[in-house]
Amino acid sequence: MREVAIVGIGTTKFGELWDKSFRDGFAEAGVKAIMDARVRGEDIDALYIGNMSAGRFIEQEHIGALVVDCAGLAGLNIPATRVEAACASGALALRQAYLAVASGCHDIVVVAGVEKMTDVAQEKIEDLLASVIDREWEGFVGATLSSLYAMIARLHMHRYGTTREQIAQVAVKNHANAAKNPDAQFRRKITIEDVLGSPLVADPLRVLDCSSIADGASALILAPYEIAKKYTDTPIHITASVQKSSTIALHDRKDITTIDSTVAAAKEAYEVAGVRPEKIDFAEVHDSYTITEILAIEDLGFCKKGEGGKFTEDGKTAIDGDIPVNPSGGLKGCGHPLGATGVRQACEIVQQLRGRAGERQIKDAKIGLAHSIGGTGGTSIIHIFERRD
Amino acid sequence: MREVAIVGIGTTKFGELWDKSFRDGFAEAGVKAIMDARVRGEDIDALYIGNMSAGRFIEQEHIGALVVDCAGLAGLNIPATRVEAACASGALALRQAYLAVASGCHDIVVVAGVEKMTDVAQEKIEDLLASVIDREWEGFVGATLSSLYAMIARLHMHRYGTTREQIAQVAVKNHANAAKNPDAQFRRKITIEDVLGSPLVADPLRVLDCSSIADGASALILAPYEIAKKYTDTPIHITASVQKSSTIALHDRKDITTIDSTVAAAKEAYEVAGVRPEKIDFAEVHDSYTITEILAIEDLGFCKKGEGGKFTEDGKTAIDGDIPVNPSGGLKGCGHPLGATGVRQACEIVQQLRGRAGERQIKDAKIGLAHSIGGTGGTSIIHIFERRD
Repeated sequence: MREVAIVGIGTTKFGELWDKSFRDGFAEAGVKAIMDARVRGEDIDALYIGNMSAGRFIEQEHIGALVVDCAGLAGLNIPATRVEAACASGALALRQAYLAVASGCHDIVVVAGVEKMTDVAQEKIEDLLASVIDREWEGFVGATLSSLYAMIARLHMHRYGTTREQIAQVAVKNHANAAKNPDAQFRRKITIEDVLGSPLVADPLRVLDCSSIADGASALILAPYEIAKKYTDTPIHITASVQKSSTIALHDRKDITTIDSTVAAAKEAYEVAGVRPEKIDFAEVHDSYTITEILAIEDLGFCKKGEGGKFTEDGKTAIDGDIPVNPSGGLKGCGHPLGATGVRQACEIVQQLRGRAGERQIKDAKIGLAHSIGGTGGTSIIHIFERRD
Repeated sequence: MREVAIVGIGTTKFGELWDKSFRDGFAEAGVKAIMDARVRGEDIDALYIGNMSAGRFIEQEHIGALVVDCAGLAGLNIPATRVEAACASGALALRQAYLAVASGCHDIVVVAGVEKMTDVAQEKIEDLLASVIDREWEGFVGATLSSLYAMIARLHMHRYGTTREQIAQVAVKNHANAAKNPDAQFRRKITIEDVLGSPLVADPLRVLDCSSIADGASALILAPYEIAKKYTDTPIHITASVQKSSTIALHDRKDITTIDSTVAAAKEAYEVAGVRPEKIDFAEVHDSYTITEILAIEDLGFCKKGEGGKFTEDGKTAIDGDIPVNPSGGLKGCGHPLGATGVRQACEIVQQLRGRAGERQIKDAKIGLAHSIGGTGGTSIIHIFERRD
């Protein structure tokens, strides 16, 4: 398998983009990435796109072919592949593209993640989110994605003494980071009181514990590491790309406060990249809910199981902490257009490793980790990135 | 890249399977394939699944994780990836799995295609089918998938003198073949008069020119060729796996009677496999409509452009013809559960190359080709299979 690098990135703002269609979003992010990488259209060998909602929200499937056509590249006849793994669809597109380059099958590959979610009725959104969990055994009996995470939060609080305030601190931190990110949906600081005073969604989780649905698109250009310098002075090496699955329904898990697929993916990713959790300089993790970030930092080994609340409260995951988590603002601060999120995480890590993350720059960042999960963790995907020069 | 073989196959009957859920379908096909390949659950390294309709028809996304869980394999934490390219979703799953094995990334990989389509209201089906074409530029102004193919048929008749009867012969042939296939949805012979007397869908295409929506599931087990003999006495070699895209909307094409993505994919597939069209012993091609098969046999090089109607009328594509096409009955005779179709085509080719296709066995079959397209040809995927012993 060949070594793979990211040579270009591009992203739209995330949010309620009333003036941008699905196609506009893809085009903007794609053109930015192509210009960033200084590749030409005819250099592109393949495209992978992560998306979940297009079929229901814009009544369009077959979006692999669609976006290649939109980009004016139909004449190239390149393979264009849409993948979906719920909220991890973007990270899945990155992984499939990584495999295509690593295998020697393709050289220059575009990865895109796109969603257009804010132009539809509320009940369609609730329906969509319920389809990422086990619809027959969870959804149809009344469970929602939020209520399942609420149960996880309750057990975490009960078993480990995690406090409501510690959980809220995830949102406070991520909003503070998002305030420094021009592409984020929510660029304003909030307080613990704001979180605890926001409307209840599923006890104990409140509105400000939840990431938002959003419109947005992000794109990456991948290339074999040996030719990456042709396109950029600062290629970012992908040193691990690992995807794992686990039970989709909570009732089949031994312990709902642990995401098995994340634990398994982290173990393999650290082995493949030859690093330990202590060597990771910062991470973009899946904070679909505040409690999701607490689980993530535990399951990724940044702190021990049960200590994620305290770890967060102590500022260890703050942008100036021991292991900054979600310097971009995360799903909470940036907004969470499902298929775009995993790709945006990679864009943020590349910006940080290039030293071009502006106000939110992490000092001396060399190794970053991206973590994305589908639903309540039926799928976990982890990438590790390194700047070597 | 390593050589890849199919070591196991399994399929459900296709049709209106009122007593089988989506999960049941996957389980039946998957268990058959696993038993056929004599692999154990713990040997499986990854799974790829092709599906298009689950989000809308059973309100379930994230089906990669779902089916691994259903199969009792969640404890293995294997990567499970759902792909979608409209009607070519099953062939796309096969191609992604092929790449995973060829690259050395995984050894034993399950490919599945599953749809549950007959339990929903008619308008939901029409909506789904309109989402495989360019929804903004074709669908929203009133075009349907059937009406676009009707325009293609009209131009083919006008330009090349193709007759209505020649086009109908595709359905007659494929129904005759399906009558010999115990897994097919329509196991009865029809006549040209039946086709021409069936209700009009989009002039000149009639009900019996159209493949049906259906429930169904098919599965394959792939392995590196060098270890395939461990699992089966008759491994079937995949000698080419090629995916191409083209314009999604008809109005952007130079010639709507040619599917550019098929022409490009065929050219590359023949090169990679080291064969010419004349060396192909039989093919399973995408006959979503009768006219689609006419285009396919021309674009694949089995006959010249414009001669597909005559070629079919002369019996060249019959099961005892020069190049049998759709010995299984094709999409027309078997039914067309979108994501399952491309996988079922591969199952049929393996059965034929093993010499176990029963009444529909093609004599001395050594090399078979599978051709699958999405929508009106925005995506084309071609696989070539060979039995070498």
